[in-house]
Amino acid sequence: MIYSERFSISTEGECQIVDLSEKIRKTVAKSKIRDGLACVFIPGATGAITTVEYEPGLLKDLPAALERLFPKGIEYAHHQTWHDWNGHSHVRASMIGPSITIPIIKGDLQLGTWQQVVFIELDIHPRRREIVVQLVGE
Amino acid sequence: MIYSERFSISTEGECQIVDLSEKIRKTVAKSKIRDGLACVFIPGATGAITTVEYEPGLLKDLPAALERLFPKGIEYAHHQTWHDWNGHSHVRASMIGPSITIPIIKGDLQLGTWQQVVFIELDIHPRRREIVVQLVGE
Amino acid sequence: MIYSERFSISTEGECQIVDLSEKIRKTVAKSKIRDGLACVFIPGATGAITTVEYEPGLLKDLPAALERLFPKGIEYAHHQTWHDWNGHSHVRASMIGPSITIPIIKGDLQLGTWQQVVFIELDIHPRRREIVVQLVGE
Repeated sequence: MIYSERFSISTEGECQIVDLSEKIRKTVAKSKIRDGLACVFIPGATGAITTVEYEPGLLKDLPAALERLFPKGIEYAHHQTWHDWNGHSHVRASMIGPSITIPIIKGDLQLGTWQQVVFIELDIHPRRREIVVQLVGE
Repeated sequence: MIYSERFSISTEGECQIVDLSEKIRKTVAKSKIRDGLACVFIPGATGAITTVEYEPGLLKDLPAALERLFPKGIEYAHHQTWHDWNGHSHVRASMIGPSITIPIIKGDLQLGTWQQVVFIELDIHPRRREIVVQLVGE
Repeated sequence: MIYSERFSISTEGECQIVDLSEKIRKTVAKSKIRDGLACVFIPGATGAITTVEYEPGLLKDLPAALERLFPKGIEYAHHQTWHDWNGHSHVRASMIGPSITIPIIKGDLQLGTWQQVVFIELDIHPRRREIVVQLVGE
């Protein structure tokens, strides 16, 4: 059994972290899938999907680490192609990755208690994003 | 066909890297699944799953890289929320990711010869961990 | 329904980034799977799979970031085990990860318009690589 859902979110700008857990849990409930896998995917090369404990401190710490490791202010060859000044966004997205796959057992997404599935907006402007959730199971 | 297994491991402390390959291979054998996917997932926001050549040198190199990129000694806003001093653990976990998905073909997990599936304990204390292995296939 | 494909690529050397999207699309078309998941996996501990906008600038920016974060020139304990001087390759591969899972809906791989699935050769020599694509769906 396969169940697909797409939902839209509007991000407010660079490094906003959006908690998707509730929407994914609702998708699992609607699907009637009891056991299987949930794949959460962002179609696009300047956003990322991962998990994090969704609390205000880490919503600052994760962007701070990204800025330390992949600074905005350095040269990116990407800018010579498109002049859109988001080379760092692309590099960050490729390093974190665009998807995550989570087991579903007895109707429950197997996340830890303090672990949320998040989308990280890495582009430099607010954007409308479509998240794809694909469930495979029975 | 879906086959679920959870197994517990006890970690000895920060940056211990535990080879899970043998346990996953046994799970595949028990499941009778010949072709499909194996998803290995850590429920929890201070551990990570990836692959590595499991040899003593890299068990030092990987922690050294994590300390260089996400140092313990710097300020993390996470500490103001919980005072548990593991902000770096959370950031590292989000960057590596909590899961990995591996093809199974003719009963074999498609790992390279020198490639092992590992759990990385990123929290600052030894912990009891539950690893979830979810197989989907036929 | 499960559909497996392996294809070989020859890489030209360190940090070459190879666009796999067309080959994966053809695999999806051949499989007749309309809805499901595509898992792309590299068996081997010195290569990685991710997505990126495949344009000449980022093909320089991603290797530059890897060299900045995981330099070739520093000491790696891995070298004391094998004397093969690719410790940085292994660490980079574990951080990016060996696989990616992408939803398939109505026969379409759900990539963004400017998002390609890529293999990154992280080893220090040109190599022959086998990429595994595993489709699960209906």
